[in-house]
This record gives sequence, structure tokens and C-alpha cells, in this order.
Amino acid sequence: MNDAVAPVQFLSGVKIVDLSQFEAGPSCTEALAWLGADVVKIENPKMGDPGRRLRPGQPDTDPYYFHVFNANKRSMTVNLKSPKGLALVKDMLRQADVCIENFAPGAIERLGLGYDVVRELNPGIIYAQIKGFGEGSPYEKNLAFDMIAQACGGTFSVTGEPDGPPTRPGISLGDTGTGMTMAITILAALYKRRETGEGHRLQVAMQDAIMHYMRINFATQGLTGKAAQRGGSKVVGINNAPMGLYPCAPGGPNDYVYIMTSRANPEHWDRLLKVVGREDLIGDARYLTPMDRVQREAEVDEVIAAWTRTHSKHDAMRAVGEAGIPAGAVLDTMELQNDASFEQRGIMQVMKHPVHRDFKMPGWPVRVDGKPPMLTSSPVLGEHTGAVLGEWLGLNAQAVEALRADGAV
Amino acid sequence: MNDAVAPVQFLSGVKIVDLSQFEAGPSCTEALAWLGADVVKIENPKMGDPGRRLRPGQPDTDPYYFHVFNANKRSMTVNLKSPKGLALVKDMLRQADVCIENFAPGAIERLGLGYDVVRELNPGIIYAQIKGFGEGSPYEKNLAFDMIAQACGGTFSVTGEPDGPPTRPGISLGDTGTGMTMAITILAALYKRRETGEGHRLQVAMQDAIMHYMRINFATQGLTGKAAQRGGSKVVGINNAPMGLYPCAPGGPNDYVYIMTSRANPEHWDRLLKVVGREDLIGDARYLTPMDRVQREAEVDEVIAAWTRTHSKHDAMRAVGEAGIPAGAVLDTMELQNDASFEQRGIMQVMKHPVHRDFKMPGWPVRVDGKPPMLTSSPVLGEHTGAVLGEWLGLNAQAVEALRADGAV
Repeated sequence: MNDAVAPVQFLSGVKIVDLSQFEAGPSCTEALAWLGADVVKIENPKMGDPGRRLRPGQPDTDPYYFHVFNANKRSMTVNLKSPKGLALVKDMLRQADVCIENFAPGAIERLGLGYDVVRELNPGIIYAQIKGFGEGSPYEKNLAFDMIAQACGGTFSVTGEPDGPPTRPGISLGDTGTGMTMAITILAALYKRRETGEGHRLQVAMQDAIMHYMRINFATQGLTGKAAQRGGSKVVGINNAPMGLYPCAPGGPNDYVYIMTSRANPEHWDRLLKVVGREDLIGDARYLTPMDRVQREAEVDEVIAAWTRTHSKHDAMRAVGEAGIPAGAVLDTMELQNDASFEQRGIMQVMKHPVHRDFKMPGWPVRVDGKPPMLTSSPVLGEHTGAVLGEWLGLNAQAVEALRADGAV
Repeated sequence: MNDAVAPVQFLSGVKIVDLSQFEAGPSCTEALAWLGADVVKIENPKMGDPGRRLRPGQPDTDPYYFHVFNANKRSMTVNLKSPKGLALVKDMLRQADVCIENFAPGAIERLGLGYDVVRELNPGIIYAQIKGFGEGSPYEKNLAFDMIAQACGGTFSVTGEPDGPPTRPGISLGDTGTGMTMAITILAALYKRRETGEGHRLQVAMQDAIMHYMRINFATQGLTGKAAQRGGSKVVGINNAPMGLYPCAPGGPNDYVYIMTSRANPEHWDRLLKVVGREDLIGDARYLTPMDRVQREAEVDEVIAAWTRTHSKHDAMRAVGEAGIPAGAVLDTMELQNDASFEQRGIMQVMKHPVHRDFKMPGWPVRVDGKPPMLTSSPVLGEHTGAVLGEWLGLNAQAVEALRADGAV
């Protein structure tokens, strides 16, 4: 075991029936699992969560998508279309603190597990649902994937070059960003429930959740009266120079450093001139104030770039950062994975899986008393069916075997 | 009051001493405030949170940045450099359930409110800290702003055109994305604390938190063995056509629709051909399988674009969506703000402020029993100093006046 991490038991004893799939739901329950909840994925016996991407009769060559959203959970297979399977899940819902689903609109009701049904079984349950579009939206019946939600939620409109097309941010904010808002609301509801015992229905739409992450763009619009614009790597609304990406040696696709001088700190410009060996420009009237530098932004950028082009991004980040000016190298996933300091600090952890090869991935980033929560393996399909039936419902091995023979699990 | 929203009291009674500023900390505590916590911002009496962007002696023309990250909170001014002011905050910390700060590295210790001090005052407190880089990172002493964290956390490397430079996603994921991970951890700690009474220290770094949102990119790297790439508006790792942004009438900067056909659903292509009036191509051997279409992607894209260019993005989204194919118009902040359905559903709410003009903004996106939490105003600087001193510490008006006269509050 990695000494830099430790199990976190904040949510020990919290039972979660997880009917979710792909990413928006699983990213939510994974956060809760990392913090100690007993998250039981209910999966269909044939292929499981479609996020597993298993192909019948072929080896599973892409377990990584599933790994990253399903660490620290348990898997139980149930055939929800069999009466005995459905009855089992209902028995589990009677025991559960939380249940969550992100099926296509209407599907959970067709399965016979809509809110009205589940609330009858367990009035204290927190019943959480994630959809693409909100109830009452003109698109409430539409399917959504991450990119659809990001397009409709605004992130495309603010990403990309000012004179270029809208661009997809390369992260799945429509899914995981949504999952985080739901995890927060579930936990707040659980907190209150310790007093009241009351259940609640929680609902979030991916389009709506994206707008939560767009608040700064709405603030910029409040100021300018115009739709928030794309700024390339500049931040629209911060009018300063130098600020942005500067090319570094040896000129690879991610060999850039971000440098940001502050309008509020006039020393940044002078300090930066020293770093880049252009003390001769200190006090030069052409570049004296932030306003002067914005007007001559191309010249200013070239002063900086002439230096950064002869330095690696790491050297540039170090030198500029040590001079007290915010700076950051553009790092790609391979550079992050190969940087041993993340594993030493428990931010990246190696998943040891019973079937698949070791896989290093980011775990939960928050440290508790100095250590991030320990990562454990994503479950093999149905790995915990017997164990969960025993622990949650008191069924013995014989009873589980009978359910298997019936095709219920 | 808007009937579509309701106050949510999940966290009523939770007392939070909020020493945070700008966005990464305030976005965390705002989520908790929306869910009912009593979040008291401790601000310096002169200018308050620098996120207020007040300029001395001038009218405040940019309250929006502050509004969007500080709704539903209270503000108390305290001069932390005066002994009486510091003593007051210590008295509040004795009463508090949570305290949070995101000052530059080392600053909270210099103020005399480091973890060791606060834990002595209140062993049950949840003490939360947000920094740019993690303890033990080579950059742990560096300042970070959103764009620095995004550069160093990987999002730039996966955003932008495949043959273009790295690009900043236009949302402040480095700040608000980090705040969400901390809010989740604080709530989990509070949940456990109802059993144990125990306090904990929680720490997160923005660079580390960004990697949480990059898990899908790490999964793609696991599959390919290469650093995750930029894909423009395509999703790297999903090899299918047609998929992506298509230009719409009348050709404005955000007049595009995202259309995504699924490899797993071969009917999508045939259905889409019907929508775009190209039934003649159904069954055409050149475009029969997903593999065929990927090989002729430019041709396939033109078949779709020839139709989308003659339709508005809204009409295109409607027609393609109704045919059962995932589709989403690229919407900008003004279009989202002007779409009345968000306000009708309580997803956008109008902030009524005692000083500034009405401002419509996204609130908390999760509905509780059908309604999102009600938005209330961001506080005027020091608006609640007297009220908080009375409620938390039992001080009367005279005692508050004496503290004011002393310059402590």
C-alpha cells in the first residue's frame, strides 16, 4: 500500500443503490465511494454498464474508461426485467440511503422504479436523477451526451480562437461537472436526514449544470452587455499584457508556458523583463502602464516569446515562477502521468485489478488529514453479487445460487 | 418570489467561517450557502474580498463577478491585523463547524490562524484549504490562478484544433471545479462528524483537482499509450462520422449545431439522411458502415452541412433531435439568458440587490423536490457585521459599536 494515501470512512455505513451508467452518474457515486460509501452498481448480467464497452466473446481491450469512473465500487448483476430480479432491487431500495439513475428520459419509470414507486418502498430515501435537459425544457425528452450538453450549456461558445469556430473544451464537464453538483446535493440531503429521517427527490440536467460552471462568463456579460466571447488562451474580461501562452523549446505541440502578469501588481512587468534579460526596457515609456502594453500587445508578446523560445517550458515556469510571477507549463496527460511527484503525494494512484493490467490514474484530489483517499479496483461485472445479497439482504449461498439458476442475478 | 424555486434548508445550523476570496474558495462555500449553511465571509474593512474589485472612491461598476460567487452569503468586516479583530475571529472559530481559506501559501499561518492554532481552539472543526499546487509539489509555494492551474493540470493540452496550439477552455474549471471537490469533502466530513464530533484538515490543490476532470483523457491515454490529443470539436477516442459541429444559418459566430451519430446505432445514419433530404444515399455502399464514413469524413460532413447551412441552429437541433439523433445548438450566454424557460424553471434567477441593478444569473442547478434553491443577494461589504456578532457571539449593539470605534470590525 502507498503510504501517501489512506482509506477515508466519512461515509461508512451509507448504502447506495447505483443504477447509473457511463459517466454523469458514475462520477457522482465514485466521489461518494472514495469517501467511504458502499456503492453497489446494479448491472445487467449480459454486458453490464455500457461504459464497460465489453464486446461479447472478445477480450476487453478498453477497461480504462470504466476504471476511471468506477473505482472503489461494488458490482452486482441483476436482471431488472425478471420479476425476481426487480423484487431483489426493491428489497435493496428498502435498505438504501440513496439511489441514483441517469437512464434516458422515461426509462426508470418503464422499469417500474420511478420515484413514486421507490418513495412508497422507502420514504427516507434520497432519490437522485441526472438527465440531459431539465423537466420543463423544450428538449426534456432528448438524449444528451457530454458534447451535446456542453454545446447547449454554453462552453463551446466561449472556447476557441476569437476569430475561429466554437470549440469543445477537451474535458467531459457535461458529465463529471454535473456529477459533482449532484454529489454535493446528495450529501447535504444526507446530512439533514440524520435529523429528520426524511427522503427527497433530487434532479439535475446536464445543460443546467454546465451553466453553473459558466457563471464567470455570465458575469462578463453583465459587465459588457454582450454575449461572452472566445479568447483563445487569453481570458476575456482581463485586459492586460503580457498574459497568455508563450512558445517554448523544443517546439512540440504542448511546449508552451502560460505567463500572467497582474494589472494590480506593476512590479510583475519589471521583474519579468529581468527574467527575460531585457532590463533595458524597464521604465521604457512605450510599455510603462498596463494600458500601454495592451496597445502594443504584439510587441510585448514578442519580447517574452524571444526568451521562452530558447527555454523548455519547465525551465521557463521555474524561472518566471521564482521571480514571483504566476506561470504554468502546459502539461499533457503523459507528462502528468510520468511525473513521479503525483504518485508520491497520492494524487495519482495505481489501480491493481484482478483481471486487467495495472493502471495509474488520478484519484480523489482532496487530502484528508494529509492523505488522499485510497484507490481500490473497479469491480469485475457481478463480482459482489453474492456478497451484497448476503450483507444487505441476509441471503445465504444457497439462496443466491437459486437466484442465479433463475436468471434473476 | 419566483414559484419555481424554494429555500433549501439541508444545511441549516451549519456555521461556516469563510476566509476565502476570488473564486476557488467562494464557489465552494456558495454551494453550501445555497443548500442552507450560514456562510459568513470575513472581509477586510477597506476593500473586502478582492473579488469585489471595488475601487476606492469610485462607483462599483463591476459587481457581477462578486455576485456570481457570493450569493446567499453574509458579510462581516474584521481587521485581522488588529488584536481585537483577530480575537473575534477566534471566538467565531470556536463556534464554527467549518472554516475555509484560499490565501497564498503561508499567509494563513502568518495571520495566526493556521491549522495548529485553530484545532486548539476547536478540535471539532473542519478546516479546509485550497491552494494552487499541492504540498510536496515542486511548485507548492507558487501562486496560481485559474489559467495557470488549467495549463499545469492538462486541460489546455486537450483543447483546441488538432494542428493548432493548446487552448484554454473558456470556463474557470481550475477555480469552480476545485471548489466542487472541496464542497463534497467538507459535506462528507460533516456527515461523519454527527457521529464522532471529530474535526479534520482538508486540503486540495487546483492542479490536482483539474486532473479529476481529466480522467477520461487519462483513460484514452491508457488505451492508446500516447498523450491525449486535441480534437477540435470532435471527441478524441470516439471514431465515428458524422460527429461534430455543423454550420447553420445565418452564419454568426455561434451558429452551429452539434450532431452525434452513434456507432452502436446504425439507424442514426439512415435517419439523418432522411432529415437532410438525402434518402438517395441510404444504403449507398460508400457510406454504409461507420468505418466507411470515417474514411470519407469530409464528404459525409458536407452532406450534412449542405443542409444545416440552410437552417437555423434551433431548427436543426429540433429536426435532428426529433428524429432520435443526439443534437445540440451552440448557445451563447446571451441566448441562454434570453431563453425564458431557464427562469421559469428556476435555473436562472434574478438577484435583487440593495445597491446594484437586478442581475439574472444561474443559481444552483439541482432541484430539491422539484425546485432549485432560492437565490438571495450577495452581501454588501460588512452588511451583517452586527447581526453575526449578535447571533454567533451574543454581542449587543453597544459592544459592536465599541469594536467599530476600535477599528476591529
